[in-house]
Amino acid sequence: MTQDSDFRYQGGAHVLRTFHDSRAAFASGADTPSAYLERCLATIESREPTVRAWVTLNTDNALRAARESTERYKANRPLSPIDGMPIGIKDVIQTADMPTTLGSPIYEGRHTNMDSASVNALRLAGAVIVGKTVTTEFAFVTPGPTTNPFDPTRTPGGSSSGSAAAVGAGMVPAALGNQVVGSVIRPASYCANYAIKPTLGALHGGEGLSLSQLHLGVHAASFEDMWTVAYEIAQRAGADPGYPGLFGPAQCAAPTMPSRLILLETEGWDERTPGTQDAFDAAVASVKERGVTLLSRSDSPAIERLEQSIAQAVALSRVLCSYEMRWALRSYQATGLLSADLGGWLDLAEQLTLDDYREALQQREQMRTDLAAVAPLADAMLTLSASGPAPSMDAIATTSEPAVQFKTGSPSFTAMTSALGAPAITVPGLSVDGMPLGLQLIGHPHSDWQLLGFARWLRATLAPTTA
Amino acid sequence: MTQDSDFRYQGGAHVLRTFHDSRAAFASGADTPSAYLERCLATIESREPTVRAWVTLNTDNALRAARESTERYKANRPLSPIDGMPIGIKDVIQTADMPTTLGSPIYEGRHTNMDSASVNALRLAGAVIVGKTVTTEFAFVTPGPTTNPFDPTRTPGGSSSGSAAAVGAGMVPAALGNQVVGSVIRPASYCANYAIKPTLGALHGGEGLSLSQLHLGVHAASFEDMWTVAYEIAQRAGADPGYPGLFGPAQCAAPTMPSRLILLETEGWDERTPGTQDAFDAAVASVKERGVTLLSRSDSPAIERLEQSIAQAVALSRVLCSYEMRWALRSYQATGLLSADLGGWLDLAEQLTLDDYREALQQREQMRTDLAAVAPLADAMLTLSASGPAPSMDAIATTSEPAVQFKTGSPSFTAMTSALGAPAITVPGLSVDGMPLGLQLIGHPHSDWQLLGFARWLRATLAPTTA
Repeated sequence: MTQDSDFRYQGGAHVLRTFHDSRAAFASGADTPSAYLERCLATIESREPTVRAWVTLNTDNALRAARESTERYKANRPLSPIDGMPIGIKDVIQTADMPTTLGSPIYEGRHTNMDSASVNALRLAGAVIVGKTVTTEFAFVTPGPTTNPFDPTRTPGGSSSGSAAAVGAGMVPAALGNQVVGSVIRPASYCANYAIKPTLGALHGGEGLSLSQLHLGVHAASFEDMWTVAYEIAQRAGADPGYPGLFGPAQCAAPTMPSRLILLETEGWDERTPGTQDAFDAAVASVKERGVTLLSRSDSPAIERLEQSIAQAVALSRVLCSYEMRWALRSYQATGLLSADLGGWLDLAEQLTLDDYREALQQREQMRTDLAAVAPLADAMLTLSASGPAPSMDAIATTSEPAVQFKTGSPSFTAMTSALGAPAITVPGLSVDGMPLGLQLIGHPHSDWQLLGFARWLRATLAPTTA
Repeated sequence: MTQDSDFRYQGGAHVLRTFHDSRAAFASGADTPSAYLERCLATIESREPTVRAWVTLNTDNALRAARESTERYKANRPLSPIDGMPIGIKDVIQTADMPTTLGSPIYEGRHTNMDSASVNALRLAGAVIVGKTVTTEFAFVTPGPTTNPFDPTRTPGGSSSGSAAAVGAGMVPAALGNQVVGSVIRPASYCANYAIKPTLGALHGGEGLSLSQLHLGVHAASFEDMWTVAYEIAQRAGADPGYPGLFGPAQCAAPTMPSRLILLETEGWDERTPGTQDAFDAAVASVKERGVTLLSRSDSPAIERLEQSIAQAVALSRVLCSYEMRWALRSYQATGLLSADLGGWLDLAEQLTLDDYREALQQREQMRTDLAAVAPLADAMLTLSASGPAPSMDAIATTSEPAVQFKTGSPSFTAMTSALGAPAITVPGLSVDGMPLGLQLIGHPHSDWQLLGFARWLRATLAPTTA
């Protein structure tokens, strides 16, 4: 049996379990979705006691779905490129065959008897829904039991803790998450995932958490798997109501060198650990070496204005989300089962008026305008996915830093893309203190596919430096 | 005991039960919310066997809430101007103390144990939640058992059938509804309600029906009650996430004569019955007589363009709503408990691609642009709230007219405001075939309160002609 020590982060993707590269073997009969699922389940059995990524495992249904998929490949009729792909679903997203608890004891064991749009789409595409992954309470701050797959004393990040950890531990090739502040990109960075938080509204977010910054996102073991999952959801479930959905072809974008990138400092700049600064500087140097022009706030008043505009994105996100959730938080509070953390969010929310909310919306709108102003300057924006590698859970528990009011790490590098509604992709490849850390590429709304091409190029550029 | 024949429509508001004019008596102690509620319950007892407006009545909780309100008035501490107001809640909106069934056997008896944002707001304002009102299946076409309070052989309209009928029958002074095609303004017109479908997003619509045209609306016995309910919800529950919410002061707008109105024909123009044409022409003549300038499509290319733009609003709404609901309809279909009508919507939805949906969104956006272009021309737009008075249920059952694919009457005068996101108010006062019919005033987004002033003026103008 493998030991946890086998899963130390070694700067690469070797622990991740990709799917796209198995399809040829499924087609030839050399491998089957059933056998693939068995390998996933073996890894889950081995690593779950430590990683604790899952709230619910639905092994019977998953085995049945994998058998059906196996039959389809035998008949040469797979439903889609993700037919047979085992996927984890963050436990804020509804599933007809499993409870949806939103990480709260209030909803323990609650069956909604309904698949969310994204889950409905995945099943129609032949994917194998393995189980529900741990989320922080209502996808906000209070963590569940999940540990970081590369060091069990550290947080996996949140709120999509279980999805990020399950992919990072090689349990599944993909998992759904969602992000309203930093809940996809941050845990993905901590767990060496490839992940996308697409353009706002690009993928149907489902029912149950009505938040104006809610983005459905995908964690995966490779860019190919990440894109294909997103694409197949978009085709079958569509976008959030009123949004035009994910743009781009079925095919994963080819690696594409950008000619100019904006180096975006974000409000997290001063939070970076020294090791993180060094790793980021080395990555930037490597990017420049290849001939990419890097622009920063000192190069352009428009960039400077954007940096100022996003400098309060965490606090702004908290105002917006608190206000939008307050009616729900009031009900939850009344049960006596709401955490003190979210009770504090409710206290904040009760201080806010409709006018305060309008002002916050206007600030967010201004951020989006300031983002649009930098569009002509570069192909995309580059920054970190988090202020450093996953912090230890002890450190989080004892700090009084306001940045870790989010108890699964600071969202200081991610809140702004949530507020901007801009697509963000985290590119694994940095290694700090023996732990993974992602670079974040940020695009303009609806440039998700183009951004993917730049991300693939960046990953290839980083790989040698992190081997 | 009163007879149903006592409730023939007599061109006025005499059967409606207003609330705002009782507040002085509550303050003085001459009347109490408890006594007010008892009068509502007596009317419900008398009329409900015929009208069948309610799915669930929660009399015990309502009596308790009314007693608490009575105590607050005694202590001179009412929570708001709607403290003590008995209100009905359309049964697609969640209530913690009653099931929420969405008019479908699939959800019979389902408790969500949660108040929607609007219900949470109403309770915080001291309102008395009387029960859940009948809705068509999932707020679309298949009707419930409700009859028109002025003629039990006719439809009450839908989808907010029970809310409109309960207010029309004088059971309650106000009820919540919602509209994605014609579900507030049409039934309100058929049942002599005062009602507002506010600007898109102005009032939080709650969870459970994610549709990009979903508007929470208010049915009421007077403009004062209508506005106050909307205002108090907006202050406490806010807007739909990402929207700036209802604008306007707490005070109901004073009657205000518009100087110019656009006479909007809409796609329903040719559906009008002869009696309806006469009644509308008389109303228009009366408005002109007071000195208001009426403009129509022949007076301006911008108006002509808007008329053309909205000419397919019903079909467009059906495309948008079908596509947005399809993932949910698939689950419902799988239960075997979906109606054939909604099965047909699902069939339509399954034919649509993401590109079709995008095209429909663009058409809707074009409609909104065309609406903005007429803003400089007039204060508001005037049209009918429906193509005629409530049709008989027999006629609906036997017709093959596509307009009544919506089995609670044609939405040909309402779909366009749903798609436009523009505020609409129905003004009772016309009488056709001994049945009520409303005039509809339509404004530009966020002009809800100004529109209310024009609506009050219009109501006063109509009153003498319909006595």
